[in-house]
Amino acid sequence: MNKKHLNKMAKNFLPKGFTVSGIHCGMKHRKKDLGLILSDNIAKCSGVFTLNKVKAAPVILTEKLLKKSKGIKAVIVNSANANCCTGKKGMSDAIAMQKATAGSLELSESEVAVCSTGIIGQRLPLEKIVKGLTQLKKKLSKDKLKDFANAILTTDKNIKLKTQTVIIGGKKVTITGICKGAGMVHPKMATMLCFVLTDANIQKNALDKALKDTNEKSFNAITVDGDMSTNDTVLVLANAKAENKIIKTGSKEYIKFFKALEIVMEKLAKDIVKDGEGATKIVTITVKGAKSVSDAEIAARRIANSQLVKTSIHGQDPNWGRIASSVGSTMIKGVNPDTMQIILDGVTFYKGKCLVLPKSKTSTVYKGKNVDIIVDIKAGKHEYTMFSCDLTKRYVEINAHYTT
Amino acid sequence: MNKKHLNKMAKNFLPKGFTVSGIHCGMKHRKKDLGLILSDNIAKCSGVFTLNKVKAAPVILTEKLLKKSKGIKAVIVNSANANCCTGKKGMSDAIAMQKATAGSLELSESEVAVCSTGIIGQRLPLEKIVKGLTQLKKKLSKDKLKDFANAILTTDKNIKLKTQTVIIGGKKVTITGICKGAGMVHPKMATMLCFVLTDANIQKNALDKALKDTNEKSFNAITVDGDMSTNDTVLVLANAKAENKIIKTGSKEYIKFFKALEIVMEKLAKDIVKDGEGATKIVTITVKGAKSVSDAEIAARRIANSQLVKTSIHGQDPNWGRIASSVGSTMIKGVNPDTMQIILDGVTFYKGKCLVLPKSKTSTVYKGKNVDIIVDIKAGKHEYTMFSCDLTKRYVEINAHYTT
Repeated sequence: MNKKHLNKMAKNFLPKGFTVSGIHCGMKHRKKDLGLILSDNIAKCSGVFTLNKVKAAPVILTEKLLKKSKGIKAVIVNSANANCCTGKKGMSDAIAMQKATAGSLELSESEVAVCSTGIIGQRLPLEKIVKGLTQLKKKLSKDKLKDFANAILTTDKNIKLKTQTVIIGGKKVTITGICKGAGMVHPKMATMLCFVLTDANIQKNALDKALKDTNEKSFNAITVDGDMSTNDTVLVLANAKAENKIIKTGSKEYIKFFKALEIVMEKLAKDIVKDGEGATKIVTITVKGAKSVSDAEIAARRIANSQLVKTSIHGQDPNWGRIASSVGSTMIKGVNPDTMQIILDGVTFYKGKCLVLPKSKTSTVYKGKNVDIIVDIKAGKHEYTMFSCDLTKRYVEINAHYTT
Repeated sequence: MNKKHLNKMAKNFLPKGFTVSGIHCGMKHRKKDLGLILSDNIAKCSGVFTLNKVKAAPVILTEKLLKKSKGIKAVIVNSANANCCTGKKGMSDAIAMQKATAGSLELSESEVAVCSTGIIGQRLPLEKIVKGLTQLKKKLSKDKLKDFANAILTTDKNIKLKTQTVIIGGKKVTITGICKGAGMVHPKMATMLCFVLTDANIQKNALDKALKDTNEKSFNAITVDGDMSTNDTVLVLANAKAENKIIKTGSKEYIKFFKALEIVMEKLAKDIVKDGEGATKIVTITVKGAKSVSDAEIAARRIANSQLVKTSIHGQDPNWGRIASSVGSTMIKGVNPDTMQIILDGVTFYKGKCLVLPKSKTSTVYKGKNVDIIVDIKAGKHEYTMFSCDLTKRYVEINAHYTT
């Protein structure tokens, strides 16, 4: 089955053994703000977390939990409040949220992961969350995927859901991802929460590796504004309900699982960029011909985060000089303006010298929803691709008044 | 004479032995676009240049010139075209511009420095420049400082001029700086051109050192959008016409000269931030309590360039969580959210925990033209101060359509 075929088949539904719910508990104005994931049985759980040194309390708590846990059954998530920079009280709030959820679902605390997203530096309104739990539990269902997806949003315009199915050892395995993120999106992860649920039967180390590797090319390769969040979390829960023979690293089955997971992660990551605050265009930036992947990544990130490049894309103005300047401003090896090539939406604008192009050739460049930037440094064989968006007045509007 | 007194005395006039002019040669629409500086005698000249690997032809030419030259007499500058990414032809254009200027003024080519600023990747309209030289020479005068200052502008709203005088060994020494820069302003220098003219008699190595050191705390400490230019150049010309006893490094006279130069450079650098594209506020960011100056600088730069921090300042919204998150996202040592302090416009918002503040205390924060951010990492004794501005819709407007 090829990628395209898989994509066509995809509808968004939950893998076996999972139920979810999402409600309004009173933190946001009218909108859903509290979500719950429950697995019938203990699911293996792998996670990647923000590298920011200012970590939110729920990130510290969940990261610690996964280190010692053999699996979890539930994830409780609130939006509207990040529970970050809230000191010791913030940590007791996160623990209280975990305890209350465990109590409500009759689970052990160590079976509950906690996530938060929203404003930094305000105490969590714990009472509202605790009150909401009864309703949240009551609403748990196989059909509430959209409710859950809505409950985790902050400044996002749209919910983000992707499902892939794949046959592994004769069994249908389902992978469903739900994520949020629109601003403060950057390495080494976006301000985003992502929950991937699968009924695959997979070894823990294989699940860890699959998450780590797919994350590199998906959530770690996107940027909206170059800011790194305090709350970024990606969790993958695998509950083995598909009853396939256990997937081991390096096996044919692992590759199948990996590819399906990769599709889910990449699509969700691109959805975040598409929904980037104020964004009107999705930008794919590939730097090739670099001396190392790391060099290519540095240059691609610099271009992706250049305010000047981002505004010129918004203005549909193929100002390739700003791209050349961005690459030159990095300290990577082998940059030489006499050999560099810059290709915008398939049109070569610069090839060691500026080319005089007829209007007929350049008139469509940067005009579409998707913009494609390729820089060939011509110094080596390595490349890296980033996904970004344009910088608009709407971005400024959204972010000038987020707390008030 | 203290700093304050010196400032009050300052009017903008040229030091002895210098004349300047600025005209419209046809590159910009109606506005002045070509400027000339001439010293009666050979002036010692020190320069600092962009670290971007994509350097404009005039930068390469002038940097090379200063390496072997014992002094220069003239600087020719055009705006509207950066002569960058223009390959070998661009270099011959820069050389032709130098030759034509030397010819017109009856100088040797090695006595003429060349600078350009403006759009990247278009050939220089050499004919217009050469044609303009006759008029430019004719208009050379002690009174055309404003004309010259206007001729070097690109997206700047205002001309930038500062003069300081200081008595050195009984002689009045004048230092006059003219600069341009509004966008693409960042380390390790702004997209800016700066020309400092002085009649001081000073040793070349002392002039080099004074420029390097004052540049660190002025032009290297400002940022508008985090983009680094291909054309940044600061030149200091010293023609000894004040007839003071020659200034040597480390002497009392050197310190006097250094302080006066520092005032000129810092004021010009702040003027650039003030004139930052679309900027409505000037932001001073001090990171203290760092384990090294370099750590403090990294954190200050990260805050200064955070789109989220910049938009919140524009929205007059003291969203200190974004500042904490910016600092946390760097890899500097000793960052701990439990000890960090954040002070905005004199009000402590965060002190290892979030503080609940009455509206009466916070209502003026971020409301003025000047915003002051202090972050104390509490990990060491080092600090660094950056100057930045807010990010506004006007910035997006200006930069979305620069080439078209």
